[in-house]
Amino acid sequence: MDALKCIVTRRSVRDFSEKKVGDKDLLEILKCGMYAPSARNRKPWHFIVMRKKETMIRITEFHPHAMMLNSASVAIAVVADTSLEKNKGYLVQDCSAAVQNILLAAHSLGLGAVWLGIYPRKKRMKGLSELLELPENVAPLAVVAIGHPEKKLEQLDRFDVARIHYEKW
Amino acid sequence: MDALKCIVTRRSVRDFSEKKVGDKDLLEILKCGMYAPSARNRKPWHFIVMRKKETMIRITEFHPHAMMLNSASVAIAVVADTSLEKNKGYLVQDCSAAVQNILLAAHSLGLGAVWLGIYPRKKRMKGLSELLELPENVAPLAVVAIGHPEKKLEQLDRFDVARIHYEKW
Repeated sequence: MDALKCIVTRRSVRDFSEKKVGDKDLLEILKCGMYAPSARNRKPWHFIVMRKKETMIRITEFHPHAMMLNSASVAIAVVADTSLEKNKGYLVQDCSAAVQNILLAAHSLGLGAVWLGIYPRKKRMKGLSELLELPENVAPLAVVAIGHPEKKLEQLDRFDVARIHYEKW
Repeated sequence: MDALKCIVTRRSVRDFSEKKVGDKDLLEILKCGMYAPSARNRKPWHFIVMRKKETMIRITEFHPHAMMLNSASVAIAVVADTSLEKNKGYLVQDCSAAVQNILLAAHSLGLGAVWLGIYPRKKRMKGLSELLELPENVAPLAVVAIGHPEKKLEQLDRFDVARIHYEKW
């Protein structure tokens, strides 16, 4: 799929069919996560792949908007190794860029995905850290649910000229 | 350009030729920024386009790693309207996804771009807010410098299997 088309046709997909996401596609998606830029090229991310339904369903116990994990084929937790942070304050930005790459890669492979916010909600961070047995220096940023879309979603019109300014506000 | 190829071949470009970035490409890039996902679909972003060299050079006065703005054709400040934030804590993630879309769109158009960190550095945020005359409710996240690359950069190997975990850390 063309890159620009991929960016503007990507939608948050929350309804998945029962078809499994293949391991080759999954690896491609994870690779794309690792090609995000990061402050001072510190690459602070790790990716926890969840395939087991019981792992995914436990997330719905502490996350109020995670019901799509019931039908997702795979979920990826994007977490950050805070000990790799040299310049304080860029971990969230680095990992968010990685999440966006993951969402785009999934879409370009004909899959659907949705970004579940974890950071900075204390309850969600604690729940996910315990579930995934994260070390103390590792902080969870987000979970991405991935699967084959149940139906095709149309492109939305999100262009808004009022959001563009020239030289100053 | 193919989306997956775009993601893995994108590099941070800091050396630009004198060729101008066209307005059509610029609009395409800005549009892609607006197609990022955002928490509760709040779309908190605004984009300040800088074409004037004197505006860009003033950024180098308060940003220690912004010398590439001397040769960039255009710069885009990605800023967030904090009054659109319903769920505290997601503005940075939303705007980072928008920045990543901008970087990928520029690369897919044959342009080069680099992400300059602004948030959460107080001095840079103050400097940019004053320069761009941002209202009090608007916070700057980043600046993206864009131009035609001076030379072609090779794809790096950023895949690291040690960053992938299964079911738990």
